[in-house]
Amino acid sequence: MSVNHPCVKDNVVTITYMKKLNLLLLFVLACFCVQAENGYDLWLRYLPVSNPVLLQQYKQQLVSPVVLGSSSTVSVIRTELASALKGLTGNAYTVSSSLTSTNTLIIGKADASKILSPLVTKEELKQLGEEGFILKAKPGKTIITGNTDVAVLYGLFHYLRLMQSNQPITNLNIISVPKLKLRMLNHWDNMNRTVERGYAGFSIWDWHRLPGFIDQRYIDYARANASIGINAVTLTNVNANALILTPAYLEKVKALADVFRPYGIKVFLTARFSAPIELARLKTADPLNEDVKAWWNNKANEIYSYIPDFGGFLVKANSEGQPGPQDYKRTHAEGANMLANAVAPHKGIVIWRAFVYAAENPVDRHKQAYDDFVPLDGKFNDNVMVQVKNGAIDFMPREPFHPLFGAMPKTPLMMEFQVTQEYLGQATNWVFLAPLFKEVLDADTYAKGKNSTVAKVIDGSLDNHALNGMTGVANIGTDINWCGHPMAQANWYALGRLAWNYNLSSDAIAEEWLRMTYSNDAAFVQSTKQIMLRSREIMVDYMNPIGLHHIMATGHHYGPGPWVSNLNRPEWNPVYYHKADSIGIGFNRTSTGSKAIEQYFPEVRKQWENIATCDEKYLLWFHHASWNHTMKSGRSLWNELCYKYNTGVDSVKWMQREWQKQQTKVDAQRFKEVSMLLNVQLEEAKWWRNACLLYFQTFSKQPIPSNYEQPDKTLDYYKSLRFPFAPGN
Amino acid sequence: MSVNHPCVKDNVVTITYMKKLNLLLLFVLACFCVQAENGYDLWLRYLPVSNPVLLQQYKQQLVSPVVLGSSSTVSVIRTELASALKGLTGNAYTVSSSLTSTNTLIIGKADASKILSPLVTKEELKQLGEEGFILKAKPGKTIITGNTDVAVLYGLFHYLRLMQSNQPITNLNIISVPKLKLRMLNHWDNMNRTVERGYAGFSIWDWHRLPGFIDQRYIDYARANASIGINAVTLTNVNANALILTPAYLEKVKALADVFRPYGIKVFLTARFSAPIELARLKTADPLNEDVKAWWNNKANEIYSYIPDFGGFLVKANSEGQPGPQDYKRTHAEGANMLANAVAPHKGIVIWRAFVYAAENPVDRHKQAYDDFVPLDGKFNDNVMVQVKNGAIDFMPREPFHPLFGAMPKTPLMMEFQVTQEYLGQATNWVFLAPLFKEVLDADTYAKGKNSTVAKVIDGSLDNHALNGMTGVANIGTDINWCGHPMAQANWYALGRLAWNYNLSSDAIAEEWLRMTYSNDAAFVQSTKQIMLRSREIMVDYMNPIGLHHIMATGHHYGPGPWVSNLNRPEWNPVYYHKADSIGIGFNRTSTGSKAIEQYFPEVRKQWENIATCDEKYLLWFHHASWNHTMKSGRSLWNELCYKYNTGVDSVKWMQREWQKQQTKVDAQRFKEVSMLLNVQLEEAKWWRNACLLYFQTFSKQPIPSNYEQPDKTLDYYKSLRFPFAPGN
Repeated sequence: MSVNHPCVKDNVVTITYMKKLNLLLLFVLACFCVQAENGYDLWLRYLPVSNPVLLQQYKQQLVSPVVLGSSSTVSVIRTELASALKGLTGNAYTVSSSLTSTNTLIIGKADASKILSPLVTKEELKQLGEEGFILKAKPGKTIITGNTDVAVLYGLFHYLRLMQSNQPITNLNIISVPKLKLRMLNHWDNMNRTVERGYAGFSIWDWHRLPGFIDQRYIDYARANASIGINAVTLTNVNANALILTPAYLEKVKALADVFRPYGIKVFLTARFSAPIELARLKTADPLNEDVKAWWNNKANEIYSYIPDFGGFLVKANSEGQPGPQDYKRTHAEGANMLANAVAPHKGIVIWRAFVYAAENPVDRHKQAYDDFVPLDGKFNDNVMVQVKNGAIDFMPREPFHPLFGAMPKTPLMMEFQVTQEYLGQATNWVFLAPLFKEVLDADTYAKGKNSTVAKVIDGSLDNHALNGMTGVANIGTDINWCGHPMAQANWYALGRLAWNYNLSSDAIAEEWLRMTYSNDAAFVQSTKQIMLRSREIMVDYMNPIGLHHIMATGHHYGPGPWVSNLNRPEWNPVYYHKADSIGIGFNRTSTGSKAIEQYFPEVRKQWENIATCDEKYLLWFHHASWNHTMKSGRSLWNELCYKYNTGVDSVKWMQREWQKQQTKVDAQRFKEVSMLLNVQLEEAKWWRNACLLYFQTFSKQPIPSNYEQPDKTLDYYKSLRFPFAPGN
Repeated sequence: MSVNHPCVKDNVVTITYMKKLNLLLLFVLACFCVQAENGYDLWLRYLPVSNPVLLQQYKQQLVSPVVLGSSSTVSVIRTELASALKGLTGNAYTVSSSLTSTNTLIIGKADASKILSPLVTKEELKQLGEEGFILKAKPGKTIITGNTDVAVLYGLFHYLRLMQSNQPITNLNIISVPKLKLRMLNHWDNMNRTVERGYAGFSIWDWHRLPGFIDQRYIDYARANASIGINAVTLTNVNANALILTPAYLEKVKALADVFRPYGIKVFLTARFSAPIELARLKTADPLNEDVKAWWNNKANEIYSYIPDFGGFLVKANSEGQPGPQDYKRTHAEGANMLANAVAPHKGIVIWRAFVYAAENPVDRHKQAYDDFVPLDGKFNDNVMVQVKNGAIDFMPREPFHPLFGAMPKTPLMMEFQVTQEYLGQATNWVFLAPLFKEVLDADTYAKGKNSTVAKVIDGSLDNHALNGMTGVANIGTDINWCGHPMAQANWYALGRLAWNYNLSSDAIAEEWLRMTYSNDAAFVQSTKQIMLRSREIMVDYMNPIGLHHIMATGHHYGPGPWVSNLNRPEWNPVYYHKADSIGIGFNRTSTGSKAIEQYFPEVRKQWENIATCDEKYLLWFHHASWNHTMKSGRSLWNELCYKYNTGVDSVKWMQREWQKQQTKVDAQRFKEVSMLLNVQLEEAKWWRNACLLYFQTFSKQPIPSNYEQPDKTLDYYKSLRFPFAPGN
């Protein structure tokens, strides 16, 4: 797409060098050159394998592929396989559909051919469930199988990933079963195509031209999701519009569901609790009202007549102005169960969000979801899941895990992560989120003693739940590269991979993503992976160090705003969270303060309740500490704050230096894009540092140590900045 | 990008066939296959020349290219040339920068090397002006030159176009000079990235990430514009926001201007007339107030300090709620001149729109711009142009040319076409607009006797104006294919080509666009060109036949709404325009009616004023005709209306049949997209036909002849349709 592809770098094509190569190589290079590198292809680029030894090994293993079966998913498998093998090897393969004795690569579900049965045991097949796959290879023979076609598709993508990342494929014995059943994306997409907290353009759902026009993006979106195991999608914003439930839109939703089905993806919608009033002019939306129940039952029947495998509803109720059962003095459980009854005959589920807090409630916002939901444990229907954000506040750069995890043993809790970087640098900062996700998943709730990790809560193993899952608020939009920042694709990828297997390390995820998305060059991978693995901690340093949180600007949340104190609801104001004063800074949530810490199990509490021993990354989350409090480094708190903010800025400069070394390893367009964005990131890091330190200095009354770069603008300047058209608001 | 590329059609790769080809050809095909065909590349695809004889001829002519000079435009020329030659020939060329005796292709401005001087005469160079180019070729030697680097860039694109469309390049003697100086796009892009009347996604200006992040799209947008000679761009909506004039945004505008400058493109902004009040808290925006003048003078100085070659302001004033000089009882001329004085020291210009009408004015809206502006002829400063829409109403599917053309001899009038298809099927209908543009440009105003065409008014030749130009309201957005409908790219292309040379035929423009954008296959070009050339007339038939106009739905203008009569302003209601009653239908604008026809010169009037002789395509535009009025076909008006609407629908079916024949000639993705959209277009054509005939039937009281398909829904059904999220509104 760009004329700036690597072969015409510096505007001069090096024909002299080219002449030394033989004609064949020249044309191989020509193929490289026309490959657009604008990021659209995500991690599914299928570029030619450049290592000739490896390429030879792959070709020996791939001689004669067959894909068995005839479903729409099997068609997808055939298309993907043909395209991938052609890209990876440069050869055009005939993918046959019936087995012969010469096949070297046999792909199909276990009952598709008798030949597959002896190669896998019944026990193996049993443990696979519906989505697990088996990948076995010995020299000259490979099989990919599972109990369903979708499982086989997952197996194919795993197999292709091995080649894309230059792994051996000659001796394999892989059995892979997803840890979680529901692996989901939540799109906060509005029907006018704006995206709440979207930083990658606008909604990819072109509602106006659906159902007649099927954008190629829908197909490529489904492919990308399937390649990382995502099997469920909520299309619409949790701040919901009832019109999505009308026939004109259900036809459009059906068209998307039809596109996604072959890829194993189920569609969910957000249900606006007041829809019966808005669409049918009922006088109430009371969940115990018979007319209301009947309306939802009929609506569910109608939806399932369009989409027989419709997943169900995701609901945000009685939170931030959304209607809900409490409007009628009913509980969240009563509201959820009413909807759950409507979808139950169709095997649908209801996902009910626990993100609730009320302005009228003077209690620390940190505590409100727990206070509301723990009493309801055991009162939800079997087909209800409660979806809990990773932390108790709101997707901060760093939060302790949500105290609800482990506290509702009778209710399946679904994890809600935010992939879109609302509070983590939006589309201008390079932040790899796997370390954040892992930090939460690996955290120990001590709900049933040691090793009761959050991961074990959400996979249902701790409390024997049949339903389980993880969702990410999507970072996907109309930008050609899908995610705004070229490196933000890694967060979509990480969400899917961790939902499949939360035991994967951040390191492993970064490595496979980099190899597929950029290059298999070992030095490139090593260096760029280090940037990724450190990026989140760097961002915490220059935005929210030492447990600070919710000190961003209002509304759009772009940039710092620790001084904001004039918003209607107290808990929307940054000053509510940092509580800086002449003594010190931080939110005392211990037993001498808001007591939020008491919602955690005693072993967890112990880690944080003593200011002297509290992990310093949560210090100001749980404690109001004096400006002169001595940190483990020996610095005073004020000096540590200055140190952290400056370390963050300096670390962005390190990211820049490391990235500049990769210029010859990366295509021109994406190299330049990341370079430009790192420049922006550095400016934003300095902005956060300067604005926060100048503001907190008005309380600490202490100087910024002279060894650090001093702010070049005044606090008033930073306070004066306005961004009326910032995205995602 | 898609896995559905032609080589894996039907999911089976035909290796048997491939084996018959030699290895070389196999790799050439491999190169074809990885070429993404999602439309992003527009008409600049540079695919390999498939005709081997022609390819050989090209290669002989291209052996040793040199590009002389060192400006940023020269860098652009080098990059484009290297990329294009590589794509077209498959060979990597060294583009040298210093002349040797062996060069076969010499590119550079005339004063770049002594060697160029003898090859072109002084007279030739003189007639070129700043933008014209010379392209001369004899076997083994080609030169492309002009007086400026940008002229040379235009010459290069012309040269590449010849090869892209498989024309001979061995014997050329081309001198090409643009007919119009200002060849412009107006973006109606809002600062929140919505686009008024945009049907291709959202604004490509990512204001939030400017100036730090330069999207590759900006560069490719500039390339595309330069390739068709567009040299000016207004970035912002005519319904303007004053914030674009603040320093934070001027920095962003500067970044775009810096990207566009090497491509010969100047940036304009829309000026909100009340900006001094909104930005500087002045008490007035009166153009004769000294503080107001000083504010604009300072603002202009400030803008030029960022962008030394800033083009100037485009202004919509006192129209549809926009502020303007009439708010202070000043004339449009007084308003325009005040701004013109501000930009004059910097050689900027002001483009003042004549699209004005007032709700308070009971006069036929058709007449109001003429009434307002003709008295001001001669009162505008030298650096003011008045921008006039092609017709007096508003970009209808068909309008007579605007009566202002020819009526303001002392004022340079700029043509405003609408490339975005607000009233012409938006992003779902395939309508090629060159025939509409040509119809207007070729129309004879008789202002100075026969052959006083609209084209001669706007090129300044009729009245000796130094300033002249043509603009198109852009149809460009964030959709990957830029324009929403794959075929809508042709309208952007046609606007540019006609602004350069309005004598080009629609046929020639369609042909060169098709060859570059799709295929040089002769049968494909012939057949698809016929679809394009007929498409606008087909759309007129099923939407607005026999001179009907402005009968679309309210607000979003999507679909029919001839019944609408409840809008605040009378001239916003469709019933104002069609005036259907028990007698007949149509707007009497003759001397017995609104007298709008009297604004045209007598020879023009004569063509239309007599209902018996009036060109029937304008019949209901100028006449209220009886339902039983006998048409030239012998049918009654009612039956002709039924005939036209049905012919329109049937013609869409013909478009579908013709397109289906092209399946093997077109890449899979775009073939499928156009097929899907033709299905939608057929449904919309039926919708227009049924809704309009059912509604008009309530007046005519006559049956739809039984040989036509009868409406399958009721008028009430069509009236009930609502599209709350239709785009562009």
